[in-house]
Amino acid sequence: MASMSTAFPKTTPFLSHPLTKSDSLIATTVSFPSSSRSRSLRRATLRVRSALIEPDGGKLVELVVPEPRRREKKHEAADLPRVKLTAIDLQWMHVLSEGWASPLRGFMREAEFLQTLHFNSLRLDDGSVVNMSVPIVLAIDDEQKALIGESTRVALIYKHPKEERIARTWGTTAPGLPYAEEAITNAGNWLIGGDLEVLEPVKYNDGLDRFRLSPFELRKELEKRGADAVFAFQLRNPVHNGHALLMTDTRRRLLEMGYKNPILLLHPLGGFTKADDVPLSWRMKQHEKVLEDGVLDPETTVVSIFPSPMLYAGPTEVQWHAKARINAGANFYIVGRDPAGMGHPVEKRDLYDADHGKKVLSMAPGLERLNILPFRVAAYDKTQGKMAFFDPSRAQDFLFISGTKMRGLAKNKESPPDGFMCPGGWKVLVDYYDSLSLSGNARLPEKVPV
Amino acid sequence: MASMSTAFPKTTPFLSHPLTKSDSLIATTVSFPSSSRSRSLRRATLRVRSALIEPDGGKLVELVVPEPRRREKKHEAADLPRVKLTAIDLQWMHVLSEGWASPLRGFMREAEFLQTLHFNSLRLDDGSVVNMSVPIVLAIDDEQKALIGESTRVALIYKHPKEERIARTWGTTAPGLPYAEEAITNAGNWLIGGDLEVLEPVKYNDGLDRFRLSPFELRKELEKRGADAVFAFQLRNPVHNGHALLMTDTRRRLLEMGYKNPILLLHPLGGFTKADDVPLSWRMKQHEKVLEDGVLDPETTVVSIFPSPMLYAGPTEVQWHAKARINAGANFYIVGRDPAGMGHPVEKRDLYDADHGKKVLSMAPGLERLNILPFRVAAYDKTQGKMAFFDPSRAQDFLFISGTKMRGLAKNKESPPDGFMCPGGWKVLVDYYDSLSLSGNARLPEKVPV
Repeated sequence: MASMSTAFPKTTPFLSHPLTKSDSLIATTVSFPSSSRSRSLRRATLRVRSALIEPDGGKLVELVVPEPRRREKKHEAADLPRVKLTAIDLQWMHVLSEGWASPLRGFMREAEFLQTLHFNSLRLDDGSVVNMSVPIVLAIDDEQKALIGESTRVALIYKHPKEERIARTWGTTAPGLPYAEEAITNAGNWLIGGDLEVLEPVKYNDGLDRFRLSPFELRKELEKRGADAVFAFQLRNPVHNGHALLMTDTRRRLLEMGYKNPILLLHPLGGFTKADDVPLSWRMKQHEKVLEDGVLDPETTVVSIFPSPMLYAGPTEVQWHAKARINAGANFYIVGRDPAGMGHPVEKRDLYDADHGKKVLSMAPGLERLNILPFRVAAYDKTQGKMAFFDPSRAQDFLFISGTKMRGLAKNKESPPDGFMCPGGWKVLVDYYDSLSLSGNARLPEKVPV
Repeated sequence: MASMSTAFPKTTPFLSHPLTKSDSLIATTVSFPSSSRSRSLRRATLRVRSALIEPDGGKLVELVVPEPRRREKKHEAADLPRVKLTAIDLQWMHVLSEGWASPLRGFMREAEFLQTLHFNSLRLDDGSVVNMSVPIVLAIDDEQKALIGESTRVALIYKHPKEERIARTWGTTAPGLPYAEEAITNAGNWLIGGDLEVLEPVKYNDGLDRFRLSPFELRKELEKRGADAVFAFQLRNPVHNGHALLMTDTRRRLLEMGYKNPILLLHPLGGFTKADDVPLSWRMKQHEKVLEDGVLDPETTVVSIFPSPMLYAGPTEVQWHAKARINAGANFYIVGRDPAGMGHPVEKRDLYDADHGKKVLSMAPGLERLNILPFRVAAYDKTQGKMAFFDPSRAQDFLFISGTKMRGLAKNKESPPDGFMCPGGWKVLVDYYDSLSLSGNARLPEKVPV
């Protein structure tokens, strides 16, 4: 997942990524929970295949060159100027290659970048509007620009207005925004856009590729299971029983609304996260335990990894999280308090108003087709000894366990109240913090004990 | 134009503004150039009345309470909590009261504010979208909030996210943005929104009210003149012959396109400007000379004052400038290089890419109906001794006279090359800088010698 080379011709740019081993080129399509019941449902409900929400732009974009044409394309690409990709660039290339950002067909050109910054949406040729709230851009430095500029097959290069990009995406320019520090501040002064052809499917060879279903594969799996409603849950944290309650309750509500087979897309974010978030490999281990322990029903749950990096851009980013899930087939999106938010990097307050995310989401251009399900607040109900929806009329019965509190407990190997998280899941968390303290409190490489 | 009191009830908020003298309550409808020819045209072309572009939302908003109901409304307002208005608040109230921001019916509620910040547009109840790129909000401080909060008729109050508002509007949070320093940084921590009823038309009693035509009055005047195309020119600087060439040439192009009577709306901005801009009264005097000297044709030009404050927010603000002119009846909008731009307040560069304004304008949601006319660059052609469109094939023949250069010449009582500006107009500029140096180089109050 280190940097890699990229080639850009004028009319049909290519991205090669030589890190991929040839034996991992074929994307696996095995989804996490799979059972005989889901297979029988598949047969019974082939008639609802077309019930899945349409991708943005009407057609799912797929930029990976089909196997038979790869040799020829690689040959063509050999003569083209190459661009080094960072780990985050690669994650975005992954996102683009599988159509999460449909109808986007490559890193943004200036017109797309400007529409994203100013309008959080793109107007298509037919006049329709799709949501697009975060810039998906590729930065190059002066030297790379000069190299490409000399090529006769030049892609579209434009200035990288870093300060403006940060201000309009995050609503602040304070130093300490994790994504900006990682991927913008020290990035090149130019952006290069244009249509992509991706020579091989992006693989990370970290043992988790089998969970990285593309939107196409997810749609196939959801159709197999005969989903007539798909509700997506974006997360970047361990699942506790409050989350589980919410997801279970959402399914119950959808059944009440008349849907016959609502499927949960439990969709942890797999790209860049900030240093104090729990790494992906540990989160996946934890999610696995949650399903094993029966907290969530494997029959009606698909666990998959969303390959996007995390921006922590609050109301701007939550639109991206929602829009990408439309492309994966979700027509319901659960939105919580302060989605994609974090503390202000300099001031002692949250960066975003906790309610702005769901408000902005409900008004966002291009997301009118998506049903937004606002998160109900769950807390530990001391009278029941389990997580329950907060009832303000008996507030004294409830205990709120924040992420900070949860991490503190796990670090100190203390136990949360019974019923806060399934024991197997909690043990994964304790093991993670254990491994951290063993390595001197630094974040470990994303390895999980087998 | 000092601060004034404002009353806010729960359901139908009012704004009183006691500064207005009763003898100036009736808006004058006299436009600047008026001639027998325009009157004859008026009669001949009543059939094209409906040709003017529709206001945003279909109907021009007018918030001034009709004369017969004012006494009753004032009586009602007497018991309501009052809010102090700054000069800029008053300018926005003026803007709102006359429907420049149609379909907005008052200072923004939170939903409108969020849509403006994130999408530069508002979705209406019928699903259609209008452009709205700059927040039109009213800030109140903690004390005022407490006073209003105690009232049983509370308007909608929400947090004033100053940093986020500045970042998303200007694309920077650097200190030194004129509007932010004047109207945001030290403003209250809360915003109050809701429908307005304005008890009297806003008047400034500065000798220029006769030029402050409302969108309704402008539409009436444009219809009188039988305009079948209206092209608006926003400006906040003296008019030189390069501008005049551009406007004359635009009319010529519109005639070539088949329009019979294109009318120019020469529309200087009348609200807050930064300290080193030429004050409104001097600019109006200069524009008057330009028409007297025959540089622009009074028969086909309407000069009027646009009451908005200036934000210097580049691509974000140019959308507001364009949108407001739709409401005044313009269906063509001339956009220059770096519209509403300025130097970066801290770094040695322009704040915005000079091309972003016209690009963003051409893609902005809700402005699809407006024809955008990009500015052709004019410069002083030494071979002709006059301003002409720049011809890159003989670049050496042209002299670019920047605003800074122009101001420098006028300050030192030097003359620009013959043909740069009409002599009468230039004299006004020299007189202005003369008056400045007399008063110790500080900006004078906006008084002009009669």
